Order: sequence, then C-alpha cells, then structure tokens
Amino acid sequence: MATEATGADAESAPEAYTQLLQTYKRVSNVRNAAGLLSWDQQVMMPEGGNPARSQQLSTLSSLSHELLTDDEVGEALDELEDADLTDEQAGVVREIRRKYDRAVSVPSELVEEISTASSEALPAWEKAKAENDFSIFAPHLQKHVELKREYAEHIDPDKDPYEVLFEDFEPCLPLEQAESILDELRDTLVPMITQIREEGDDIATDAFTRAGEYPEEDQEELCRDVLSTLGYPWERGRLDTSSHPFSSGTMFDARVTTRFDETDPLGSLFSTVHEFGHATYNLGLPDEHYATPLGESRDLSVHESQSRLWENHVGRSKAFWNVLLPKFKEHFPKAEDVTLEEAYEAANQVYEDNLIRVESDELTYHLHIIVRFEIERALISGDIDVEDVPEVWNDKYEEYLGIRPETDSEGCLQDIHWSHGNFGYFPTYSLGSVMAAQLYAAAEDDVDDLESHIEDGDFEPLHEWLTENVHQHGARYETNELVVEATGEDFAADDFLDYVTEKYGDLYGIDA
Amino acid sequence: MATEATGADAESAPEAYTQLLQTYKRVSNVRNAAGLLSWDQQVMMPEGGNPARSQQLSTLSSLSHELLTDDEVGEALDELEDADLTDEQAGVVREIRRKYDRAVSVPSELVEEISTASSEALPAWEKAKAENDFSIFAPHLQKHVELKREYAEHIDPDKDPYEVLFEDFEPCLPLEQAESILDELRDTLVPMITQIREEGDDIATDAFTRAGEYPEEDQEELCRDVLSTLGYPWERGRLDTSSHPFSSGTMFDARVTTRFDETDPLGSLFSTVHEFGHATYNLGLPDEHYATPLGESRDLSVHESQSRLWENHVGRSKAFWNVLLPKFKEHFPKAEDVTLEEAYEAANQVYEDNLIRVESDELTYHLHIIVRFEIERALISGDIDVEDVPEVWNDKYEEYLGIRPETDSEGCLQDIHWSHGNFGYFPTYSLGSVMAAQLYAAAEDDVDDLESHIEDGDFEPLHEWLTENVHQHGARYETNELVVEATGEDFAADDFLDYVTEKYGDLYGIDA
Repeated sequence: MATEATGADAESAPEAYTQLLQTYKRVSNVRNAAGLLSWDQQVMMPEGGNPARSQQLSTLSSLSHELLTDDEVGEALDELEDADLTDEQAGVVREIRRKYDRAVSVPSELVEEISTASSEALPAWEKAKAENDFSIFAPHLQKHVELKREYAEHIDPDKDPYEVLFEDFEPCLPLEQAESILDELRDTLVPMITQIREEGDDIATDAFTRAGEYPEEDQEELCRDVLSTLGYPWERGRLDTSSHPFSSGTMFDARVTTRFDETDPLGSLFSTVHEFGHATYNLGLPDEHYATPLGESRDLSVHESQSRLWENHVGRSKAFWNVLLPKFKEHFPKAEDVTLEEAYEAANQVYEDNLIRVESDELTYHLHIIVRFEIERALISGDIDVEDVPEVWNDKYEEYLGIRPETDSEGCLQDIHWSHGNFGYFPTYSLGSVMAAQLYAAAEDDVDDLESHIEDGDFEPLHEWLTENVHQHGARYETNELVVEATGEDFAADDFLDYVTEKYGDLYGIDA
Repeated sequence: MATEATGADAESAPEAYTQLLQTYKRVSNVRNAAGLLSWDQQVMMPEGGNPARSQQLSTLSSLSHELLTDDEVGEALDELEDADLTDEQAGVVREIRRKYDRAVSVPSELVEEISTASSEALPAWEKAKAENDFSIFAPHLQKHVELKREYAEHIDPDKDPYEVLFEDFEPCLPLEQAESILDELRDTLVPMITQIREEGDDIATDAFTRAGEYPEEDQEELCRDVLSTLGYPWERGRLDTSSHPFSSGTMFDARVTTRFDETDPLGSLFSTVHEFGHATYNLGLPDEHYATPLGESRDLSVHESQSRLWENHVGRSKAFWNVLLPKFKEHFPKAEDVTLEEAYEAANQVYEDNLIRVESDELTYHLHIIVRFEIERALISGDIDVEDVPEVWNDKYEEYLGIRPETDSEGCLQDIHWSHGNFGYFPTYSLGSVMAAQLYAAAEDDVDDLESHIEDGDFEPLHEWLTENVHQHGARYETNELVVEATGEDFAADDFLDYVTEKYGDLYGIDA
C-alpha cells in the first residue's frame, strides 16, 4: 500500500495539523533525547553520574509534558475534530489526542507524587528482596496501589481502574479481550505442562552445560556474529552489555544490549535475539516519519510480538539451529559433539522447578505472567490486600506450576515492576507472544517456504514481510486493526495454542 | 573561604531569585542533556543516527533558548537589580543577566540563519580542504563574516564587532587586555624561536620514534594508567576514543576522550593529560551547585588554563617524566633504553618546519594562534577580504615561523573553527596557556616543594590548590577577579614568558 509522507502531504494539510505535528515532533525529540540519556545511564555512565542524570531526566520529562499539554495543542486538536483529513492524518490526530487527553487529566502534583513514591520504593524493594522480607516493601506497594487508583480515577472515574492502568501500556487493546486470551492460555497450558511432566519423553537438556563454562568474550563474539547473520544493520545500531538486556532508540539508531553468564551461553544468545526483534521493529519504521506517530511503534504487545517472534519462532526453531549450531561450534570448539537434535531440545526444554520468570521457558513463562496479572488486578480492585500478596502468590504458583516458592525473594519480590508502580505491564509480555504466533503463522502462509529460507540463513523474506505488514505502519492503525491488516484475522490465541500444542507435542512425544 | 550553598541559603533569598534559579537549572539540565547527546554522537553513535540526532539537538537548543529568554526571567532579573543579595547571589544574577541579555538581543531568525550557514559551510570546508581549493570555502566564509557582523550589531552596535564575538567565548575578559597579552607573546616568541633554531643546542628528538610502532591497545592501557596515577576518579568519568580529543560533562560525570596514532605515543598521552586537565576543572566544581552558575566553569581561557597546566607544566616536566617513564617502559618494554633526559627532550622539542597547529609544540603553538587571531580580526573589521586570506596567512607564517605553506589545505584550511563561524575562539587557547603559567607559578609559591611532590607521583597537593583557588568558585568571580583571587596578581603574560624563557633557555642552551 502507498504511504503518504507526513512531510510531503503537509501542504495539503490544515494549518492546525501542521502546527500540531511540529509541536509533537518537539515532544518526540525531547523523549528520544531522554531515551538516550537513559541508555547511557544503564550502559556507559560512571556510577557517580546519577545525581546529575536524574535531574536532567526529570527536566526533560517535565518539558515534554509541558509541550504536550500546551493549550495550543488542545486548540489544534479541537479544530481538527471536523477537519477533512487523510486516513494517515486522522491516525496521527487520534494518537496525539489520546496522549494529550491522558496528560492533561492527571494533576502534575500526582505525577510528582507517583514519581517520588517510585524513587522511595525502589531501594525498599531491593532491600526487601535481598533480606527476603516482604514487610519492608509492603508499605511502598500499598502506597503505589493507592496512588494508582487515584491516578485512574482522574483519567476515567467510570472505568475499572485496572483497565485504565492497562491502557498506559496498551491504549487500544480492550482489557476484556486481553483477559480472555490470558484465560485461554492458562486453561490450555496448565494441563499441557502437567502432561509433559507426567507423560513426556525425556529430552536432552545438557547440550550446553556438559562442556563447562563459556567465556564472556567468546559469547559476545558469537552474539555479534548472530546479529550480523540475522541482518542487524550495524550502521544503525550497536550491542553493549547491561545488567538487564533492553533495546532502545529510533529507526536511525536502534541499539540492543545483552548480559553474559559464563555457565549459560543460551542466556546471552536468546536475549540478544529477543532484543534484536525489538530493534527490527524500530528499524522498520519509516525514516520520513521520524518523531511523528507514523514513525512510532504501536504499543507494548506489538513490540513484544516482534521480540518473541525472533526469539521463539526463529531463534528456538530447528531451522535456525541449522544455521546457528555451526557458528556456535566455531566460537566454542568444545561444543563440537553437540548434535542438532540435542541443541534443539536443550533450547526448548520445559523446566520442572523454575520459580523465576526471567529464567523460564516458552511454556511456563505465561503462567508466571498470569499469576502476576491475576494478583495485580485483585490488588487494584481491592479483592486482596497487599499483605495477602505473598500467600496468594505462592498458592497460585502451586496451582498453576506445581511448585511453591520457599522465600518471597524468589516469589513475589522477584520482579522490579511493582516497585515502579507499573500495574498492567506484565500481561503485555504474554500478549506479545500470542501475537508473535499469529503473525508468524501469517508470514508462513504468505512467504513461500519460509522455513527453508531460515534453514539457509536467509532472513530477508521474513524481514520484508514484517516491515510491510507491521513496521511500516507505525501507529497508523490501532492494535486490532494492525493485526487484521497483517494476518486477515482478529487478534486471538488460536495460532499460539496450535503452535505450542504441535511443537511441544512433537518434542515431548505427547498428544496434547 | 566559606561557600554558601545555593540551595541552603535559598530561604533567605528573594522569591524572584529562587524562581530565577529554578528556571536556570532547567536551562542547564537541557544543555547538559544536549552535551551528553553530543558526546554520544562523537563517541558511541552509529553513523546512521545523524538525522535523528541533529533534530534532537536542535530541539534541545531551541528549548533552552526559549526557557532562558522567557519574559519571567527578564522580570525576575529586573526585580533583582535593587535586591539585597549575598555576594554569591549577586554573582549568580550577574551571570544569568549576561546570558539573558545576549540571548534576547539576537533575533531567532538570525540564529537560525547562522546555524544553517554552518551546516552548509562544514561540508564545503571539508571538500575545500580535501581538494586544496580555497575557492570552494570562500563564499561560505564570506557569508559567516557578514552574518557575524550582523549578529554583533544586534548585541552592541557601538562596540567593535570582533570584541562582541570574542565575548561569546570570553565574556568578562577585555579584548584589549587579551590583545596586549598576545602581542607580548608574539614579540617575545618570534625572536626566541629564531634564536633556538640558529644558536640552540641539538637535542634528542627520537626517543619515541626510534623503536618503531606503538600498538593502540597498549597506548590505551598506558593512558588509563596515567589517568589513574594523576588521580582521575573513574567513578565520575571514563576514557574513550574519538576523532578529535575532547572532554565534556559535569562534576558528577566528567568524561575525556583521546585518539591514537601508532607512530606517535606522545600524541595520545598528551591529549589524554590535556583533557584530564579540563575534566579536573569540571570535577572540582561544587556538587551542591550543580546546574547553577556557581557550579559552572568560568569561560574558555580559564578552562584551557587547566588543560594546559596539566599538559605542559605537569605533563612535559622532568619531575613528571620521572614518574611516567617507568610506566611507559612497563607498557612498552621496547623503550627500555630511553633515558629521562632523552624523554624530556623529545617531549619538549621545538619543531623546525611544522605547519599544523594541532601538531605543534609549546612555543610555536602561540604563533599559529596569533596568525589566526590577526586574520580574523582583520576579516571582521573589513581590513582584509576573504579572498586575501590565503596570501595573508602564508605571509604571516613566513614572517612569524619562517615557513610558508605550499597548499591552503595545510594553510588556512587546516582548522574547522571558521566553518562553524567561530571568530574569537582561537585566542582563548593561547590565553589559557598564559593563565596556566601564572596559576602554576602561584601554586609553586603556595605549595611546599610542589616539584618534589610531582616527582614522587603525588598530585594531591596540586589538585587541592587548584580546587581551592580556581574550581570551587565556579563562575562566582569574573575572569580577572578569579586570577587575582588565586594568584594575587592581575592576569598578565609575565609568568608565562619567564617560564618559557627559563625552560627553553636551559633546554637549548641559549640565553634568551
């Protein structure tokens, strides 16, 4: 389909549209500058730099808020309500309107208070986790729950407050739809995992542990090699190390990070491929729409669909290991005896007793998420109290995963998200995986013999399909529209459930 | 002396002062954010990132301008004219007033026009230099001269326009004083250099060239070692590589860069020590005054005095080489036979036929600067035309240095500064050297046996003297006040001329 350039059609746009876009570009530039400051803070900054960096970030954050909530933005948006706009222009206005409405509805004192609460909660969470003492974190979590209820009330007093919070991360995917997908996942995966454990074949799990340690430098070389193989454009990106892997940037400069564990070469590898997936989305956004909604990614689930697609559907596939294993052996000759089948099995094993989300596998991962989703919904609605969280957490782990944490440090204190007051974020991880399966199935339908391209190390057809069907649209379409546009179907769990049923059925020799 | 904290005495400050300082902190934070973006652009950014980075920088630049020129800033400044302020508060108001007055007096269209002219001049200068064709650059230089005259006219139509331009870099040092110092330098150095060439002893120059090449990795290790030895606090800094060495940042995060030439280990070493000197200034500014004028360095000459002091008075001294040479040999065992005397002579040789400023020595350097200063003054005043520049340049090189460039690429096209429209910048380099000598002489008077501390690798007494007498004051004092405060004397060339006369007299066995 034809893409009209934001710039090129500016002449035919109403004056208010042109001005609105100019202001929005400033907002985006300030946010992108803040993004770089944050990347630097996590990757390059000497530790002493924090006091200045936090003030710089706070100034940029308040400036972008002031620019976005300027009266002239509101006036331009009002004027454009009845204007004659192209579809793209209408999409731009819709996106800016949504951000504007949300930004003006929350008093800046409350934003300030939430920010302060986060700053105080973070060290308390770190201490609570280190000392395995939930009571240190509990009052901060309580504070966050109260502030976030108040926040949601300002935005829409008539809506379920959790729904409002979810919209911070997923503004155009109905919570009801998200919840029904997560319910389906739970209802299918819990029995499937039980069946794997009870009836599944033994698979090889030691392909990458039996040969001892893997030096960090060599792992890094391998990650760089894999990024090049996958088509990462180094002239628009870089790979660094950080304590938590992440990706950031724009279509011009989409950086990724990873981390290394010398006992686990798959960890750095899959996190690199995962972040590569995020980066491809940023890189696929159209250059000419930089700093406008047409040059921005859709929300978290769609972003996560890109990382999961590359991590799971490509990175954990046998076709890809056909390319990867020889490279792995080049960098690690000691893995010479590992067979393709062993590598595939090790990369796809379902863990028996893992309590930690970030160390989990493609199946159990979603139950880690669903536990958090159910707890945070209940917390915000008041169905449970903060003090109940550890018990409810442990019960749900027992119910869904058949394991019970012995400490809160490896239970409800394991993740950082709630210390930031982020409620509604976790579900987007699973939704992204589900969307990845749907997109990948559509790509398989559209691209002739996609698997054999991957087996040959040719990732270009997949890049092209994703760019054409997802990336190039920026935020032009809302989430469901985008999925329909790309796959011809509503966003749903079917493809994901088919994918895991077939894959893990084959792998563990069960008829799930 | 006691330092009142900008924050601590805020309670006793007029409301207008508190508000002014709040706004100024936002301006500083935006500028510091831009500083980090610029550091990243030169050190880390993948090449493809430029289109987005330049838009981000442009947005931050216009935002900081808008914040500074806000009507409320002008009103607060007016209100504070007759307010009862402490000396420190008065210094803060004076600094903000100066920046405000300048910022509001230039129409933003002209600022925009100058910025566009720079963007166009830079590639033209690169091409002109590469093709040794001044005519490619000439129209751009002409444009800059005209725009900068217009710029100066807006700021003060009654002043010599060059003086106004000089104030952009050196707002509180009279041009007349600067010029008289530069004249003294020229009048002393030209005959001194001639005498060295005609009557000077032969000195050893091959200490670091006779052993072949010095691998980049080893040079980098040496530079890190030297930075640690000098007392660089790694928790507030980092060393990286860039095509032109520079330093940037704040007291919390003062980074340096260097560059490597495998045939010239002294190049990376001295540029590292030079940038270290700049960094010590930023690091010595008081933490509690971050983002206010009391936490900002005085202007370019003072900043350059710190880099030159460490580069020349420490880095090129025999006392320091007593510490450095053993380290050098640790990293480069092939230099094992180099004696202290040879090293000192090689590090201080006066070049016979060097045409390039950035490759020059401690003496001839200033004649490179004086040529540029005299030409840019004459250009702005209209005493010479752009088309005369190559001829005038070559004549002056012949007159002052006894060498004549054969091409404009190694003549008037060698530096980037004029392509940015920076007139008035060059002199600050020499003024910095002169100030370094005056400060170092005062430190020698104040610190018991400073030389033997350095000989022992103990740089703490010098750091303490500089912090107490220069760094801690931020921009509280104007330049001459600061020099008097630190040295008890007006800023003048005497100490510098004594220093070079004695040092080079000894080195070359002449009675200069």
